[in-house]
Amino acid sequence: MSSSLPSTMQAVQLDVPDGKLILRQVPLPRPRKNQVLVRMAASPFNPSDLGALAGTSYQGERKFPFTPGIEGSGTVVEAGEGFMPRLLNGRRVACSARLSGDGTWAEYMVTSAGQCIPLNSNVTLEQGAMLIVNPLTALAIFEIAKQGKHRAIVSTAAASALGWMILRLGKRNNVPVIHVVRRPQQVDLVRSRGGEMVLNSSDPDFVAQLRTSTKKLSATLLLDAIGGDMTQQLADAAPYNSTILLYSRLSQRKSEIDNLTALTMNLHFDGWFLANWLAAKNLVQTLQLAQRAQSLIATDLQSPVSQRLPLSAAQQGLESYVENMTAGKILLVADPQAVPL
Amino acid sequence: MSSSLPSTMQAVQLDVPDGKLILRQVPLPRPRKNQVLVRMAASPFNPSDLGALAGTSYQGERKFPFTPGIEGSGTVVEAGEGFMPRLLNGRRVACSARLSGDGTWAEYMVTSAGQCIPLNSNVTLEQGAMLIVNPLTALAIFEIAKQGKHRAIVSTAAASALGWMILRLGKRNNVPVIHVVRRPQQVDLVRSRGGEMVLNSSDPDFVAQLRTSTKKLSATLLLDAIGGDMTQQLADAAPYNSTILLYSRLSQRKSEIDNLTALTMNLHFDGWFLANWLAAKNLVQTLQLAQRAQSLIATDLQSPVSQRLPLSAAQQGLESYVENMTAGKILLVADPQAVPL
Repeated sequence: MSSSLPSTMQAVQLDVPDGKLILRQVPLPRPRKNQVLVRMAASPFNPSDLGALAGTSYQGERKFPFTPGIEGSGTVVEAGEGFMPRLLNGRRVACSARLSGDGTWAEYMVTSAGQCIPLNSNVTLEQGAMLIVNPLTALAIFEIAKQGKHRAIVSTAAASALGWMILRLGKRNNVPVIHVVRRPQQVDLVRSRGGEMVLNSSDPDFVAQLRTSTKKLSATLLLDAIGGDMTQQLADAAPYNSTILLYSRLSQRKSEIDNLTALTMNLHFDGWFLANWLAAKNLVQTLQLAQRAQSLIATDLQSPVSQRLPLSAAQQGLESYVENMTAGKILLVADPQAVPL
Repeated sequence: MSSSLPSTMQAVQLDVPDGKLILRQVPLPRPRKNQVLVRMAASPFNPSDLGALAGTSYQGERKFPFTPGIEGSGTVVEAGEGFMPRLLNGRRVACSARLSGDGTWAEYMVTSAGQCIPLNSNVTLEQGAMLIVNPLTALAIFEIAKQGKHRAIVSTAAASALGWMILRLGKRNNVPVIHVVRRPQQVDLVRSRGGEMVLNSSDPDFVAQLRTSTKKLSATLLLDAIGGDMTQQLADAAPYNSTILLYSRLSQRKSEIDNLTALTMNLHFDGWFLANWLAAKNLVQTLQLAQRAQSLIATDLQSPVSQRLPLSAAQQGLESYVENMTAGKILLVADPQAVPL
């Protein structure tokens, strides 16, 4: 162990599903083979964190207590065995948490070297803290659209940080996007960001409106972040041979799909998860993607930050976040001095 | 009109969803461009007919009254304009009903020439009456399995006529099949037909049993004929990157899918419908498929017939069918003299 490293650290922990976030002093974790220890600079609240906090997460059943937080940024301060860890040692990185391990809401995190992206010198640690989950998902969506020859996209949860990235990348790539939100204020918000086609799923004739738009634009890639009733609504509005990407479950409910709609309209419902998608890429592809994300992080893939809180205010930050998920990103900052403005 | 054709015919009709089947004297329909008039010899009850009888069908909203029946056989007795109708005129054919038109449970049916398969001389009209829906679906499934490099298949509703075909084709093609039924008697039935792996979905640990089998055999093609809870059960037991084919809805309920399962396991839920699948094939492919079905109709694709009833007994036949759907096919016979034994 480096002599400069402490033997314990502060970490946010969750003891029970949907419990309060508590800051504790815990032993410093140590990197094993192909792992690194990151001194965390900043980490955001993401919609996917909420699933983990409820105990139902991408990770399957969790052991409690654990430290939440799926992405962040920091500096690699210790390398486990292996070529990649040595290469990363001392570097500023964006990083994501291992599926089964403790997360980013702590002073330090151990993660796989493969889940770290070295940051270019012009990318701040604050930008790097939000480089992985939303930006790579947004880039992936347009890669999927291109590969599947989809002419237009339907984006749900369109007022979210990810929705905004999809809006901007749609303009950049000349791919029309139909934005779906669920409140009138969100319609205004997405319009103010430059969204041209914005539908409110609470409108009684929402499905008919959506069907008209998907037909007109041949919008055959429909992004389902919601689950529950939304999935069948998308299916009812989808053109023949459409793909509905099941990539989140913000409603916390199962998707309902009528097999008759699916089969008569030749619909494809594809589960999609960033970690799986990245795992199927080779090193060159991954590096290209990471470079592209960094080149756009100050523009199309930028997320405004509304609050910067210390780890001790994690519970307060969570409550603010849940109250208004579209108000800008809330960052947990382990070491305020490490975050350049 | 040929001078030998009558001006009216007997046809089974349904006046309201789930109503009684009534035999009526109605005007003889006439073929338009690219259509033919078939003098029906025989037509079966199929699971898909039950959806149509309930008013919820592949066809979407139906206008009542209409004549049900999705497939059958007979002789083309009048040709509409066009090359294909002229080619078929006078031929014995297997035929399916148009999605929006009247069906096969009548003395005559008008259908598209493209929905007729000329029968080889060694195929009886009785065999021909059951040549399309189940045999072509069974052949399609093994084509899909081959194209997707699926090593083994999970078959639901495995005690059905289609399930039996899948069992036999699995042996022929050396593709292991895991058979799923829902009653102990059906387990015995499928075993008596040579099924080796037969699971009962009513067992409390069904999903765990299924998961063990799918992993062992890499069964990554799962055929969902049921919908409702079955879809998520299949998803819970499916290996990573599996395809779940949504091809029927025997439960009459929507499929429930947890997006988290779908996305972590990279699952693909594909709506599949024979008519769509056939429409995407060219003429040569279609003819090859029709030849293959006819070459196997007396062996792997054969369905035993348990009853032969006149059109006037349609309601009675339906009740027998619903009571025991795995007891053998019930045929409606418009003209008993026309059916060779």
